[in-house]
Amino acid sequence: MASDLYSQIVHSAPGSFLAKQLGIPQPATLRRHKPGEPPLAGSLLIGGEGRVVEPLRTALAEDYEVVSNNIGGRWADAFGGVVFDATGITDAAGLKELYKFFTPLLRNIGPSGRIVVVGTTPEQAGSEHERIAQRALEGFTRSLAKEMLRGATVNLVYLSADAKPAATGLESTMRFLLSGRSAYVDGQVFRVGAADSAPPADWDRPLEGKVAIVTGAARGIGATIAEVFARDGAKVVCVDVEGAQEALGVTATKVSGTALALDVTAADAVDRITQHVRDHHGGRVDILVNNAGITRDKLLANMDEERWDAVVAVNLLAPLQLTEGLIDNGTIGEGGRVVGLSSMAGISGNRGQTNYAATKAGMIGLTESLAGTYADKGVTVNAVAPGFIETKMTEAMPLATREVGRRLNSLYQGGQPVDVAETIGYLASPASNAVTGNTIRVCGQAMLGA
Amino acid sequence: MASDLYSQIVHSAPGSFLAKQLGIPQPATLRRHKPGEPPLAGSLLIGGEGRVVEPLRTALAEDYEVVSNNIGGRWADAFGGVVFDATGITDAAGLKELYKFFTPLLRNIGPSGRIVVVGTTPEQAGSEHERIAQRALEGFTRSLAKEMLRGATVNLVYLSADAKPAATGLESTMRFLLSGRSAYVDGQVFRVGAADSAPPADWDRPLEGKVAIVTGAARGIGATIAEVFARDGAKVVCVDVEGAQEALGVTATKVSGTALALDVTAADAVDRITQHVRDHHGGRVDILVNNAGITRDKLLANMDEERWDAVVAVNLLAPLQLTEGLIDNGTIGEGGRVVGLSSMAGISGNRGQTNYAATKAGMIGLTESLAGTYADKGVTVNAVAPGFIETKMTEAMPLATREVGRRLNSLYQGGQPVDVAETIGYLASPASNAVTGNTIRVCGQAMLGA
Repeated sequence: MASDLYSQIVHSAPGSFLAKQLGIPQPATLRRHKPGEPPLAGSLLIGGEGRVVEPLRTALAEDYEVVSNNIGGRWADAFGGVVFDATGITDAAGLKELYKFFTPLLRNIGPSGRIVVVGTTPEQAGSEHERIAQRALEGFTRSLAKEMLRGATVNLVYLSADAKPAATGLESTMRFLLSGRSAYVDGQVFRVGAADSAPPADWDRPLEGKVAIVTGAARGIGATIAEVFARDGAKVVCVDVEGAQEALGVTATKVSGTALALDVTAADAVDRITQHVRDHHGGRVDILVNNAGITRDKLLANMDEERWDAVVAVNLLAPLQLTEGLIDNGTIGEGGRVVGLSSMAGISGNRGQTNYAATKAGMIGLTESLAGTYADKGVTVNAVAPGFIETKMTEAMPLATREVGRRLNSLYQGGQPVDVAETIGYLASPASNAVTGNTIRVCGQAMLGA
Repeated sequence: MASDLYSQIVHSAPGSFLAKQLGIPQPATLRRHKPGEPPLAGSLLIGGEGRVVEPLRTALAEDYEVVSNNIGGRWADAFGGVVFDATGITDAAGLKELYKFFTPLLRNIGPSGRIVVVGTTPEQAGSEHERIAQRALEGFTRSLAKEMLRGATVNLVYLSADAKPAATGLESTMRFLLSGRSAYVDGQVFRVGAADSAPPADWDRPLEGKVAIVTGAARGIGATIAEVFARDGAKVVCVDVEGAQEALGVTATKVSGTALALDVTAADAVDRITQHVRDHHGGRVDILVNNAGITRDKLLANMDEERWDAVVAVNLLAPLQLTEGLIDNGTIGEGGRVVGLSSMAGISGNRGQTNYAATKAGMIGLTESLAGTYADKGVTVNAVAPGFIETKMTEAMPLATREVGRRLNSLYQGGQPVDVAETIGYLASPASNAVTGNTIRVCGQAMLGA
């Protein structure tokens, strides 16, 4: 799992000593989402000159205390969030607008403040010079994310050049990033397509009335996903293996959902889920979260066949079987949402995890591939790649490994299972119909793992 | 610069202590390219079942001691290199071929051994299942690269699905990866297009008769690029600022090239280069290396305007001006090669370098954008992103920062300027006409920087 990314560096090091010697700042308490509370801990400055600044001011005015920009001014207050519309930057010289906008106000970003830069998808830019400038935004935002303290985050959103002027497809992503739901998402890039979106009746319960399947739901991150989904209004089908039935029952009861004991690799897994959903939920599924996953670590030179086969079967073949099976048999229909669990190991590789990393890179491939395949059905396919998340597994790690893994990111702390679950909730929302084919890292901008 | 990537972690740490405590293996002496020596220090095993295995055996037979595969067998000898053709893998279950091929032979990889896996560009795969399996190769190779010891490297090459059966466009990339020229390139992904290629008369002098411009050539990596180009047969125009004229003269004399004192940001830079090339080199340029670059580090909150402007002008506006100007006025014609210097900071961001990282991400944008624009002229545009490279600048770093920066990669050492130069030489070769739009990291698979 993600935690092992770090173990190779630190297996002989005295961890708490290391953390101190590294001179890493003390972590801030991250402000997380609580239903009913304001999304930000302060006002929201929206500036820049482009195609989204006015639509965003209008869209967010109801739930945010929106302030207009005043480039070059000094500010008395601390902002809860800052949005910069960079879609108007059409060449490298124009990048100066970033400097002019941000430099005077960086000391006015409050704790857990949220900075979001919105640009245009570089590949769709109107000219080479615009494309280059838009691509440059990524270096800027990833650097600024490393400069912010006190739990503040910086993320970049690329909006399709084809999005209509109202840019309604952007709203769910902006609301996610401008809230405590994205507490542990930092230094990342989101790609939003051209589709229009309708807002949910209540942004606090975006999954109202939806039916969701969560595999591996008995414990850990899977159980937390089920809880967050239920909090946001969904009915959850909690799936896990026979051997985890007791814990599965506890989760299902807690979220007022149903439990289905099932091996996701079984040949009849699709049929059994389909039958269960017919029996208990009216036959239709809106959301599938392919969360179930296993590790069987070993250096490739020492790996036995069983380790290879088991990891590929559970982590890659099963998600593919469930996704294709449930869409093809109509259980997941128009507007469906599929979210998979990738991993930092799938992005950067990890020693001792050739099998696991192959499947987690394969999950990115599944996401990119099926996003295209199912676009005409209005089904989105996305993935999340967790970094160091505090779980029972990380609790069991040696102190040194744990401390280093926990600290080597821009927020100087591990994430919580709820941070992964909130990100999945955002991707699973009906309002996120313009977001597909993304793999979003939930890692606090982990420094290790390139 | 790249070295600063690490400073934020270690600025207060006693470095040599740290390096020891981290328990990182001692670095191996990397085998580097020497003209006239065999490309590998042992035989080359080529296995797998796909569309490139036979063409590669044929193409490489003259200069390599090629051995055929024997899956499941045990080997008596140590291999200098191993190639696995994974283009025949069409679904996730087929990934098992990787396990079956590699597991028995990993103990037979010699020091500085070279492992290359060849797959099909996932986006062009014939089916979703093939695309997913091909994408999974990246997780496998990046993990295996982290498991190899003694200077061995693992890289992945994605070949266009449209490449003809002879796959001649693949050869320059394979020869680069299967030689000491790629000593510090590890855990990376190369994308090779469908174009056919003709081999040079002599693979040891691939730049014979070519004219190359190298900016920032007076010292450091730029001077080494000029040397490698001259060794490989090119005439080099060494460009640097007025203030570096003495060093520039030394480099130009050493490489039997010409010196041109020039500020690349000047409005007449293109005209002056064009005139110089007419006066001294027959008017035509084959290769442009946009190497000149500066840093003006400061946290964005404290940054003055001059730092922002200077970095953008030198690192991004000037390369764009030179590239477009020299192609548009015909100085760089059909078959031209443009290579830019990006940076790990441009990929992952870096604290104190919002300006620098924006330009280095912009360089990736320039590469991707202009690769498309100039494809019909047969001009390729690529970039390299160096990791921790041993230079005068890194010598001046505090011991702790230097030691950590140097060790946190899969080869447990810093790279040499020649490693960057060899990679640029490969991209600049006439035989690399099928390679465009790539940004290649020369970083020993740096662990920091995601």
